Amino acid sequence: MSTTAINPTRNNDYPEWYQQVIKAADLAETSPVRGCMVIKPWGWGIWENLQRELDRRIRDTGHENAYFPLFIPLSFLEKEATHVKGFAKECAVVTHHRLEEKDGKLVPTAPLEEPLIVRPTSETIIGESFSKWVHSYRDLPLLINQWANVVRWEMRPRLFLRTAEFLWQEGHTVHATEADAREETMKMLEVYRDLAENVLAMPVIMGEKTAGERFPGAVNTYCIEAMMQDRKALQAGTSHYLGQNFAKGSDIKFTDESGAIQFAHTTSWGVSTRLIGGMIMTHGDDDGLRVPPKLSPRHIVILPVVPKPELGAKVMAYAEELANSLRGLRYGERELSVHIDRRDERGGEKNWQWIKKGIPIRIEVGPRDMEAKNLVLYRRDRPHKEKTILSAADLPARILGLLDEIQGAYFSQAKAFRDANICKDIRTPSDFRAYFTPKNEAKPEIHGGFVLGKWSGDAKAEQELAEMKVTIRCMPLEQSGTNGTCVMTGKPASVDAIFAKAY
Amino acid sequence: MSTTAINPTRNNDYPEWYQQVIKAADLAETSPVRGCMVIKPWGWGIWENLQRELDRRIRDTGHENAYFPLFIPLSFLEKEATHVKGFAKECAVVTHHRLEEKDGKLVPTAPLEEPLIVRPTSETIIGESFSKWVHSYRDLPLLINQWANVVRWEMRPRLFLRTAEFLWQEGHTVHATEADAREETMKMLEVYRDLAENVLAMPVIMGEKTAGERFPGAVNTYCIEAMMQDRKALQAGTSHYLGQNFAKGSDIKFTDESGAIQFAHTTSWGVSTRLIGGMIMTHGDDDGLRVPPKLSPRHIVILPVVPKPELGAKVMAYAEELANSLRGLRYGERELSVHIDRRDERGGEKNWQWIKKGIPIRIEVGPRDMEAKNLVLYRRDRPHKEKTILSAADLPARILGLLDEIQGAYFSQAKAFRDANICKDIRTPSDFRAYFTPKNEAKPEIHGGFVLGKWSGDAKAEQELAEMKVTIRCMPLEQSGTNGTCVMTGKPASVDAIFAKAY
Repeated sequence: MSTTAINPTRNNDYPEWYQQVIKAADLAETSPVRGCMVIKPWGWGIWENLQRELDRRIRDTGHENAYFPLFIPLSFLEKEATHVKGFAKECAVVTHHRLEEKDGKLVPTAPLEEPLIVRPTSETIIGESFSKWVHSYRDLPLLINQWANVVRWEMRPRLFLRTAEFLWQEGHTVHATEADAREETMKMLEVYRDLAENVLAMPVIMGEKTAGERFPGAVNTYCIEAMMQDRKALQAGTSHYLGQNFAKGSDIKFTDESGAIQFAHTTSWGVSTRLIGGMIMTHGDDDGLRVPPKLSPRHIVILPVVPKPELGAKVMAYAEELANSLRGLRYGERELSVHIDRRDERGGEKNWQWIKKGIPIRIEVGPRDMEAKNLVLYRRDRPHKEKTILSAADLPARILGLLDEIQGAYFSQAKAFRDANICKDIRTPSDFRAYFTPKNEAKPEIHGGFVLGKWSGDAKAEQELAEMKVTIRCMPLEQSGTNGTCVMTGKPASVDAIFAKAY
Repeated sequence: MSTTAINPTRNNDYPEWYQQVIKAADLAETSPVRGCMVIKPWGWGIWENLQRELDRRIRDTGHENAYFPLFIPLSFLEKEATHVKGFAKECAVVTHHRLEEKDGKLVPTAPLEEPLIVRPTSETIIGESFSKWVHSYRDLPLLINQWANVVRWEMRPRLFLRTAEFLWQEGHTVHATEADAREETMKMLEVYRDLAENVLAMPVIMGEKTAGERFPGAVNTYCIEAMMQDRKALQAGTSHYLGQNFAKGSDIKFTDESGAIQFAHTTSWGVSTRLIGGMIMTHGDDDGLRVPPKLSPRHIVILPVVPKPELGAKVMAYAEELANSLRGLRYGERELSVHIDRRDERGGEKNWQWIKKGIPIRIEVGPRDMEAKNLVLYRRDRPHKEKTILSAADLPARILGLLDEIQGAYFSQAKAFRDANICKDIRTPSDFRAYFTPKNEAKPEIHGGFVLGKWSGDAKAEQELAEMKVTIRCMPLEQSGTNGTCVMTGKPASVDAIFAKAY
């Protein structure tokens, strides 16, 4: 029998552990609509906090929010040839706008003249607006962001990581010059790195995708890549320099300072609810979820321990006094959120519910703590029995520091794990193959982590990679500048790349 | 030639005035997707503020946010017979999940086994989740809210008022008893009244809809009704007691305290981006939009006046000093938003742009103001040339009070207008008809406002009302309790009702 709260453990069955953590934390569940999920209040609270943190960063870098249609006319999607090819296989298509009863059965009627696609991404529909908004170089840069739902039909959906409908923000910007657009692309990649590392406590590698992994229609795609605890990679955010491809498709032109008419340069960039999947797989342990304090819907739960009913009112009053002592404090973007769990259930049961939900701090108070004006504090980054006795008077002065320590500990732990699982020593194709070959047939998920090695750019070798289910995650922005041999072909190569199995 | 910023004026052509105000304020625009609008940054900022205010009220009344699928399987919609009939004529139907090239043309392929409806409202898909979440009376009440986009196909779309896609919140709650569910229904109606009156500055009448105007599937529908400046009514929010209708359709059952299994009682309630249309039509004037301070994306714009280029830097520094003196102040839910308009354009032009956008306060500062340590302040609730000279030192202490005055003035003006246009004297059917007959054939929009009169409930009379394009907006919660004669039939009647033409 398992002695952990989550069964199976990460080592026993990582994919199933992931599902069980989500269930135990009451984050989300599948719905009767294929590939669409229901995000429950605890999961939604995490997403709201993530939105708040990112939204501030998007505004601070000069962008404004707006909202564009859910539907894209089929002909719009075709405006960029590579783009439509990239999304054609996963489009939800609206073809009718009415239901009618026929032979006792409700069927779609009133066919549309032109089918509408539920947006898989919005370059083409937003481009249409931009072509009307941009006339002169004075209108540039145009810096717009949208928070929205998008749909990409998924054959193998997985909660948060790959769902047919997902929620995201998509930034879309227009610039006069390539240099300006490239600067924007990299600026937003850095915003994503900051969000991932300082809010999600998830270390990431910034890099560029290979041609094969580019966003359909982009000139360059940059990404942040994180390592999950099964040592697979998760693409956590992307930022694209789109060149003039979409500007030409959507006719986004402007008169420059010399009076000449030019096509603009555009960018787009997005992160999604997938980040919550990344958070779960980066920080979760065999007792359930661990939510970084900056994202946790609640920071602290106070669990009153009432051994005798007649003491209930007093202990509850003491719990309220503690909660009140924290009132008005702010952590990051919002007020400290303190919850008193008043439910009339077994204390151990309640305690474990909060452990599984990953709340950063649990505080237990009983009659003796009350008399001593103490409290017992448990941190989710420490073993679940490790307690700290604190004086109630010290709590307000200590609490923000404790939350910072937990936030920091999650990042350090994740970074240590990732760094320990990046292999930099592979020089030969045979070593490379061995590294990605499962050591144990019964557990194919146990294999090497990331390889940081040289890549010659050989197309055939990229095919072989695919057969091994390995992909080039990115060519890190930080390049060593050294020469070496390609890990796949043994040919001379100078580009550093990250190779990994991925979600 | 018109001497107002908006052409035509409200009196000349109200519907066209509405479109022109939206354009002049840069709030939104139509899109190439029939009935779907683009919400531009100034319009989106208003929606975000409205969301923030309402979201707090929804949380303060004990609700939690969550998120449910965009799509509803056709069979789910059919779970409540009246419900599906009510929405069948306006459903966007997804029938395929792929595009493929055939004869050089991209066409939908991969038909779905069961068509999916883009949610027009979510009772049936949320009900499916609730049926799994609710087991015992201990799980009740279940109080959930969702912020989402919904689609109802519109043949005559109009920006904000009636769009195929619109944004809203929809509350969905489950209760053990009818009494609890009815209490919830009325509680949320009151939240909507508070939002309309204290945030939108839009006076509303709370009442119940007649059977013919009920939400499809509801037992009772309650609403808040506002009067626009053309004296038509706008339904601004609804709250429904759904009885056990949807609980039976979705199988939401619970074990009560005695161990018996019962169907639950549910409610739903929503307001949408339509409220922005209401705000425009309640407060806009012939110079453009007037945004209540609680909703305005920016509260104050500072317009530096630079007569000679060499004075530019000094005046700009003074403007910054003023802005800094307001830093840290909060108005309502958020920080005071002060914007310095640094654009190198004609002062008059800039001034009028902000008037048309409806910003509450404009502050002009030039070299002389700088020397005198003064500023010139203009309020959007006052004639556009009416200025107040204020000492810079007094500004921080005065500013919140000024915003409150403007917020209050908008409400008072709207209430005075509405109250002056509610006719309570109609006793005979012929007077009733005369009241709603346009006085001027060329301007059919000029007609009477609201009639508060008696209603006998006669079905044939309700048909005749429809022919006159008049509807019963609601039976106000506040009933006089008197007896009288029905304004349509002359029969004895005791129910007070509001009759009006409506959006």
